[in-house]
Amino acid sequence: MNRPEAPALGGFALRGADGAARRGTLALAHGLVETPAFMPVGTAATVKGLTPDDLREVGAQIVLSNTYHLWLRPGRATLEAAGGLHAFMGWDRPILTDSGGFQVFSLESRRVLDDEGVRFRSHLDGSEHAFTPENVTAFQEALGVDVAMALDVCVKLPAESGAIDAAVRRTTLWAERAAAARTRAETQLFGIVQGGLDERARERSATALLALDLPGYAIGGLSVGESRADMERTARFTAALLPTGKPRYLMGVGTPRDLLVAVDAGIDLFDCVYPTRCGRHGRALSRTGEFNIRNAAFARDLRPLEAGCDCATCRNFSRAYLSHLFRADETLGPRLLSVHNLRVLLRLMEDAREAIAERRWAAFRDERLGALDLALAEP
Amino acid sequence: MNRPEAPALGGFALRGADGAARRGTLALAHGLVETPAFMPVGTAATVKGLTPDDLREVGAQIVLSNTYHLWLRPGRATLEAAGGLHAFMGWDRPILTDSGGFQVFSLESRRVLDDEGVRFRSHLDGSEHAFTPENVTAFQEALGVDVAMALDVCVKLPAESGAIDAAVRRTTLWAERAAAARTRAETQLFGIVQGGLDERARERSATALLALDLPGYAIGGLSVGESRADMERTARFTAALLPTGKPRYLMGVGTPRDLLVAVDAGIDLFDCVYPTRCGRHGRALSRTGEFNIRNAAFARDLRPLEAGCDCATCRNFSRAYLSHLFRADETLGPRLLSVHNLRVLLRLMEDAREAIAERRWAAFRDERLGALDLALAEP
Repeated sequence: MNRPEAPALGGFALRGADGAARRGTLALAHGLVETPAFMPVGTAATVKGLTPDDLREVGAQIVLSNTYHLWLRPGRATLEAAGGLHAFMGWDRPILTDSGGFQVFSLESRRVLDDEGVRFRSHLDGSEHAFTPENVTAFQEALGVDVAMALDVCVKLPAESGAIDAAVRRTTLWAERAAAARTRAETQLFGIVQGGLDERARERSATALLALDLPGYAIGGLSVGESRADMERTARFTAALLPTGKPRYLMGVGTPRDLLVAVDAGIDLFDCVYPTRCGRHGRALSRTGEFNIRNAAFARDLRPLEAGCDCATCRNFSRAYLSHLFRADETLGPRLLSVHNLRVLLRLMEDAREAIAERRWAAFRDERLGALDLALAEP
Repeated sequence: MNRPEAPALGGFALRGADGAARRGTLALAHGLVETPAFMPVGTAATVKGLTPDDLREVGAQIVLSNTYHLWLRPGRATLEAAGGLHAFMGWDRPILTDSGGFQVFSLESRRVLDDEGVRFRSHLDGSEHAFTPENVTAFQEALGVDVAMALDVCVKLPAESGAIDAAVRRTTLWAERAAAARTRAETQLFGIVQGGLDERARERSATALLALDLPGYAIGGLSVGESRADMERTARFTAALLPTGKPRYLMGVGTPRDLLVAVDAGIDLFDCVYPTRCGRHGRALSRTGEFNIRNAAFARDLRPLEAGCDCATCRNFSRAYLSHLFRADETLGPRLLSVHNLRVLLRLMEDAREAIAERRWAAFRDERLGALDLALAEP
C-alpha cells in the first residue's frame, strides 16, 4: 500500500474510523502528528527533567507548553531573540501552546475578568499583567508554535448556570477576536468549547465556534473537579458536536483509562502532566495501573518496571535500582520514571492507532480497560 | 604505528612521560583506563542526574562510588542479588570504590576508632555499623568493582603530629590486613598513603605500603582544609615517593587548576564532586574558570556555555535556555550543566594525555593555567 498523501498545512486527514474512534494525520508546520496522540507537557519550555532527545526516543510527536508560564518567564523578548520557542528549547517537532486561560483561571483571587480580557498578578513576583484574545494570539504566533489556543474562560465545577453561560459568551467573543487577530499561516488557532456539564451550553459554545471555521477544536473546562462519569459523558457529548474533518483535543486528560474512553468518544489529541508528575513522585505506570516504586516489595526486584516495555529505562534498569534512586532522593529516579511513564502513554496511543486502523478498536479498548480494572496487587 | 599492547589485568603501562607528567594505560577487569584520567563521582551508585549513556557520551572511562553509602543503602545483599554494582547501576566500564574511611572520618562524633576498625552510626537512621579492613575489602569484592581502596584513617588538617603518626600507623596496619583479605583477582586493591602535611610521615606511610606491592597507590588526606600551596607541595612530594610503574591516584581532587598541577606532579587518577556539584548549583566550568549561569548577563545570551565545546549541552542549548532552566528551578538545568562540566574536565584530561604523548606538556600546562589566571569577567 502506498503511503497516504499528507494533508496541506493545518489540515487533518481522517485515515480511518472504528465506531466513533478515529485514526488521523494532522499536518503542522514542524511535521505530521498521527492521531490519536498524547502530548507531553513542557510547561516552562521543558518537559521536566527530559531533553528533546529523550522525548524523541519515547516517541513524542508534539509537546505542549504554556502561554501563561512563558509570558512571565523567560518572556516574549527572550523567546523572540532565541528565534522562537522551538529554537529556545531545542525541539524541532510540533508544539502546541495553551492560551493561559486555564492557568489564569486557577489564580482566582489574583485576577479580574471583563469582556476586554483578564488582568492578573504573576504568581512569581506579583507583577501585573493583562491577557486579551489579541495579545495572547500574538504571543503564541511570536513564539512560532504550530498550534495556538484561543484565550478562553474556564469555570470551576460545580458551577451555577449563570457562571457557565457567562463563560461561554466570553469564550465565544474572545475566540472571534483571536481569529481576527491571526497573522501567521504556520500557526493554527484552535478554539476551546466551554459549557461545564451543561449540554445546552456546550451546544451553544460549539455552534458559535464552528462558525469561525477554525482548523481544530478543543474541549475545555473538564478535569476541573467533576466526577469521572460527568467528565466522560460531557466529553463524549461535546466530541459529537465537532466536525468530523478537524482534530478534536480534550485538554488536561489524562490517565490511560481516560485516554481509552476519550479515544472511544472520537477525540484525537490529549495532554496531561499525569505521567511526568507520577514519575517525579515515584509512581510507575503499567498496563494494570500504577504502583509506588518505593514499596518495600521492589527493593530487590530485578525485573524491569514493566515486562516487555521498550523504553530506555526498562531496557537498562531494574525496579531495585529505581527503588534505590527514589529512596536515596537521587534526581535520576524522577528522570528515569518519567521516561517510562511517558512511553507507556505514547505506546498506548500507538497501539490505539493500530487497533483503529485494523478495525479492532472495541476489542482493544475492552482488553485494556479490563487490565486496568484488574488492579493487580503485584504489577 | 601499531596500537601498543595492553598490560595484563591490574597492570599499568607507562606510554610516555614529559617531565614528571605521565601518560599511561591501566588494565582493569571492565576495560582499559587511559591516564591521566578523571573519575566522575557516583556516590550512591549514580552520578547525580546522569545515566551511564550520558557518562559514556562525556567520555568517562571509569567512575567512583562509595563503600560507606552503598553499605548503608542499598546494602550488600541487594547489590549481590543484582549481580554486583555494575549490573545494578547499568555501567559496564570500570568502577573504583572508595573504602569509606574518608566518609566515616567525616562523621566525627558518630564514630569510634580502634586498631580493630571503626564503629559508627549511620547518618541516615542512626543504626550501628562497623568497618574493618577485612569486611570493607570483602564488601568491595562482593560488588565486583575493578578497584577497591584499603580502609584508611584520614585526619582533618591542621593536625598534631601525634594524630598524624597514629593515623599512619593504623592505615599501614589496616592496609596489610586488607591485602591479606583479598580473594578476587578481578578487583585491584589500592593502598592509601596518609601523613598530613608532614613529609617524614608521608615517607613512612609510603614505604610501609610499598612493601605490600599493591597494584596502585593513592594519596589520601589532602583537600581536607589545608591551603592550596600545602596541598600542591604535599601531593608533589608524595607522588615522587610512589613507584613509577604503578598508577598514582590523588583522592578528592579537583578543579581544573588542581588537575593541571597534579598531572604535572606525575599523578594519574583523580576524582571529585566538583564538576557535578557546580552543575547542580548553576556554576558552569570553562577554560577560564567558572561562572554562574543565573547571572542577568546570560538571560538572553544565545551562545553555548563555552565556544567550541563538543558536549551535548553546548551542541543543543544556549546560555539563555540554561539560565531560564535554573531561574525556573527546572531539574533539566542541573542535568545539562553537569554534562557540560564533566565534559570540560574529561576533555582537559584528554588534552593533557595528548600533550604529554607529544612532549609539549609544559607549554600546554602553562597555557591552561594562564587562561585560568586571566579570570575573565565575561567568559
